Amino acid sequence: MRLVNLVGERFKEKPADCVIDSHALMIKGGYMKNVANGIFSSNPPLKRVTTKIENIIRQEMDKIEGQEVLFPVALPGSLWEESGRYETVGSELLRFKDRTGSPMVLGMTHEEAAVHLVREYGNTYAKYPFMVYQIQTKFRDEARPRAGLIRVREFTMKDAYSFHTSQEDLEVYYDRCLEAYNRIFARAGIEEVITVKSDSGMMGGKVAHEFMLLTPVGEDSLAICTECDYSANLEAADHIVKNDTFPTEELTKVHTPNAKSIEEVMDFLGSNIKQSCKAVVYQKNADDAYVIVFIRGDLDVNDVKLNNYLKEECHPAIITEESGIVTGFIGPVGMDDKATVLFDKSLEGIDSLITGANEVDYHETGFNIARDYGEVTYVDVATVVDGSICPQCSKETISIQRGIEVGNIFQLGTKYTESMGMTYVDADNDRKNPIMGCYGIGVGRLAASVCEAKHDEYGPIWPMSIAPPWQVHVCCLKSNDEETRAVSDKLYTDLLDAGVEVIYDDRKARPGVMFSDADLLGVPLRAIVSPRNLKESVIEVVTRDKSIQKKVAVDEVVGEIQKLIQELMA
Amino acid sequence: MRLVNLVGERFKEKPADCVIDSHALMIKGGYMKNVANGIFSSNPPLKRVTTKIENIIRQEMDKIEGQEVLFPVALPGSLWEESGRYETVGSELLRFKDRTGSPMVLGMTHEEAAVHLVREYGNTYAKYPFMVYQIQTKFRDEARPRAGLIRVREFTMKDAYSFHTSQEDLEVYYDRCLEAYNRIFARAGIEEVITVKSDSGMMGGKVAHEFMLLTPVGEDSLAICTECDYSANLEAADHIVKNDTFPTEELTKVHTPNAKSIEEVMDFLGSNIKQSCKAVVYQKNADDAYVIVFIRGDLDVNDVKLNNYLKEECHPAIITEESGIVTGFIGPVGMDDKATVLFDKSLEGIDSLITGANEVDYHETGFNIARDYGEVTYVDVATVVDGSICPQCSKETISIQRGIEVGNIFQLGTKYTESMGMTYVDADNDRKNPIMGCYGIGVGRLAASVCEAKHDEYGPIWPMSIAPPWQVHVCCLKSNDEETRAVSDKLYTDLLDAGVEVIYDDRKARPGVMFSDADLLGVPLRAIVSPRNLKESVIEVVTRDKSIQKKVAVDEVVGEIQKLIQELMA
Repeated sequence: MRLVNLVGERFKEKPADCVIDSHALMIKGGYMKNVANGIFSSNPPLKRVTTKIENIIRQEMDKIEGQEVLFPVALPGSLWEESGRYETVGSELLRFKDRTGSPMVLGMTHEEAAVHLVREYGNTYAKYPFMVYQIQTKFRDEARPRAGLIRVREFTMKDAYSFHTSQEDLEVYYDRCLEAYNRIFARAGIEEVITVKSDSGMMGGKVAHEFMLLTPVGEDSLAICTECDYSANLEAADHIVKNDTFPTEELTKVHTPNAKSIEEVMDFLGSNIKQSCKAVVYQKNADDAYVIVFIRGDLDVNDVKLNNYLKEECHPAIITEESGIVTGFIGPVGMDDKATVLFDKSLEGIDSLITGANEVDYHETGFNIARDYGEVTYVDVATVVDGSICPQCSKETISIQRGIEVGNIFQLGTKYTESMGMTYVDADNDRKNPIMGCYGIGVGRLAASVCEAKHDEYGPIWPMSIAPPWQVHVCCLKSNDEETRAVSDKLYTDLLDAGVEVIYDDRKARPGVMFSDADLLGVPLRAIVSPRNLKESVIEVVTRDKSIQKKVAVDEVVGEIQKLIQELMA
Repeated sequence: MRLVNLVGERFKEKPADCVIDSHALMIKGGYMKNVANGIFSSNPPLKRVTTKIENIIRQEMDKIEGQEVLFPVALPGSLWEESGRYETVGSELLRFKDRTGSPMVLGMTHEEAAVHLVREYGNTYAKYPFMVYQIQTKFRDEARPRAGLIRVREFTMKDAYSFHTSQEDLEVYYDRCLEAYNRIFARAGIEEVITVKSDSGMMGGKVAHEFMLLTPVGEDSLAICTECDYSANLEAADHIVKNDTFPTEELTKVHTPNAKSIEEVMDFLGSNIKQSCKAVVYQKNADDAYVIVFIRGDLDVNDVKLNNYLKEECHPAIITEESGIVTGFIGPVGMDDKATVLFDKSLEGIDSLITGANEVDYHETGFNIARDYGEVTYVDVATVVDGSICPQCSKETISIQRGIEVGNIFQLGTKYTESMGMTYVDADNDRKNPIMGCYGIGVGRLAASVCEAKHDEYGPIWPMSIAPPWQVHVCCLKSNDEETRAVSDKLYTDLLDAGVEVIYDDRKARPGVMFSDADLLGVPLRAIVSPRNLKESVIEVVTRDKSIQKKVAVDEVVGEIQKLIQELMA
């Protein structure tokens, strides 16, 4: 098409309110327009990118025997009540009532809809395994949408659901899907995406992986070993403890005036912070009941690890006077009737601890958990930090990095099939619940991630591999020069005839304007027709990233461009 | 793919609650599953049909310079407030609040979103004309969803919006789009679709057309001339009047005891019903103010024509005592202070009418509107019926038929650009509002309409032209017979290698089960491999509609099938 007709506005100025480059460039380049907080319309260039990405996803899903279906965007609340999620999911699930007053939700994920669709179909083991997927609009009422297409409220997502008769069968399929995902990201131009172990969150299930594009602007924190191939989302990373030895002492109550923080107490007592037993207080969202986590003073509790252990959501506590909890001086003894008391693994094996005495301005030294409190089961809720011990190679080589999650896969188990009563008859005539996996990729987020990974200060550098908005951008540098116009027009139609996707800029515009628009559209190949080049009977062909710049004879240029497209596709 | 793996249940029994064949067959054939009232999930066969239809639509939209975009499903209420429709559209517009309490709507049409997207882009005349379109999920909270995919609450729709600087330019584009629509329906296999003039309803604007598939199960009523090419939706059909002559008489009040209905009064007076002046009473939805329409006694008021004339919605009245309106005996005189009084064109030129005397058990004869009431402007709000006069050829040849609306196009004018403040600078440096057109096709409804037009009692007969679920259905009639199995397997892979879309039934099932499943899937070509045929070294190739049945030598069958696909595509 001709650039002059392309709907969408391009700007010179850097747009305000854009915290990451992909967002700024996609606004500047007329790819999208903000409609409401976290809700965008796509202009033709973005729609063309996402269509290409959707086709890659579709091909890879079909290769692993996926069958495309379509679930509704608006779902009856009753379906989410069946799984229990109507109650348990927070206000990111948008609930509303239809004209008859029936509760409805906007689908943010479709496990319930998937089970509903195949509940009767999957009635015998002979039908298994099978996988259904859709590419459809989702809505998630995020409290804080941010970073353009990275965290939005409305988005297009590919979500897939597989059904199995055994955990082994699920695992085989799960691995095939993991490979398909790696192919998708590689084909979309970001083969640097890594796979990390993740927390399965509100989805249920145990094993889960996220696909992460490492970038400082990512919103997820990852624990990555610099020595081995270990990687995990911080929310799922095991914290490995190596404690110093402290000899057993007598339990002694000590007056610690004006020392409230751990550091102050340790300074006052002249002790090592690694000997301290710090209390971190939460409340359960459901009933505001207190939860006190005791953890080594130099460590922090990871909220998600805590929630996962408790299997319910907590928030940092507001401690009331009636609670009987003495802020700043909390110790484990006598707390059982006031709160759920947990001990992090970081305290295991420390025979002499310093902790609060549950009395203002007093601490206890020589505290021994088994002797002074009782036998406990230690839990892992500590946050892994830079230099933590790798759970795999045991070296202190964990590095905390940031990433954008471009996809995720979950082994769901029978959470949904059990709660929603989906069963099949197995070979022995027994009724069983099928085992599920689910697999998601956000299309818009993937487009933005590619842009985040592949751009310069002037615009996106779309990889040819996803054959982005267009394959070739033809610039006619002087459209009122008869020969230049004629050669450009012919090149445009010749390329179209050759099946190449072309955008043609024949505006009466200065070269600077043309090139900055071309940079913003990020088309991988550019053909520049100018009077100066035509004097030598050549056309300049350059790649968007300037890695290839050549002058090609006018009558060879279509062939050369086709060859370059092939090379860049590979 | 192999039929044994196809997700979706097929039934023998006719499903309950299906009022039309396409709904029954698509439920029976496992094409879709009901999720809530008017909300469905699509199984793979339906998804494959709609994808093919979407691709045809996309190609035809691109041919008329359409640019694909994507608007949100969830839109801020403020956008609909800009156009005024947040208030004026009824409860079919689903309104809700997000987590912050902001009013939102689910898009049922996207004029506002389209204007929002291009409001800044279209700032100068040089950018015009242009058209953007999307294929996206819509939600319309219908009070009475019915007939499967014909009237649903959630649906996929192609909606297009064009922008112009003159009415002439809009009209040229409108006609191009009308032609594109005709190509779409023809390519989808229902070239019998007719174009009818329609009411533009809540969309605003004057000129509108609907594309109708004539079928007794359609929910729209159409006035179609059997002599010329006139056709119109009943809601937009002009009612042409030819009145008898009745000589002027004196106005006389007559006692008409026990005669309430028009027929009773006319019988009592020994008069012709075509001389009667009947009152039909409405109330405005907005404020319940009364509207009285006087119309010839043998005719009915068309509610939509009335609403369009009034430019607001009305409902049949509940007449209270306080209103001063004497039900059954209403006449025009003295009604002006009680109601908005309208006279249908059917009363024009009748010099002597019989009407109510606004007193129980009394009528007036010899009523002359101009003499006894005053000069009035007659309006056309009468319902056209079988045998009505054609507005085009003037013969009494109107036939009322039913149809399914498979698409519609509207000339919107400046309703949205004016209310939403979209302007451009024209060649004379004046600011003007662009003129819009909009163009819709419901994808699911089109699929159902094709099924409605092309089916037999056993299942859909999908036209090859939309290359429906699959192009060829291979039946291996005796999969435990070694040769039959080997030939079938080879045919399946050879067809796949040749780029043919194949579904392969190699189940251990009786031929009756196989054929009834094949009928339900409606694949246009079927290849039957059986031991009996193989004795003669042939494979049976039949079309779904049985118009072609031939035995083809085993080694020629792939070529023959490819040839038939080409022929059926044409």
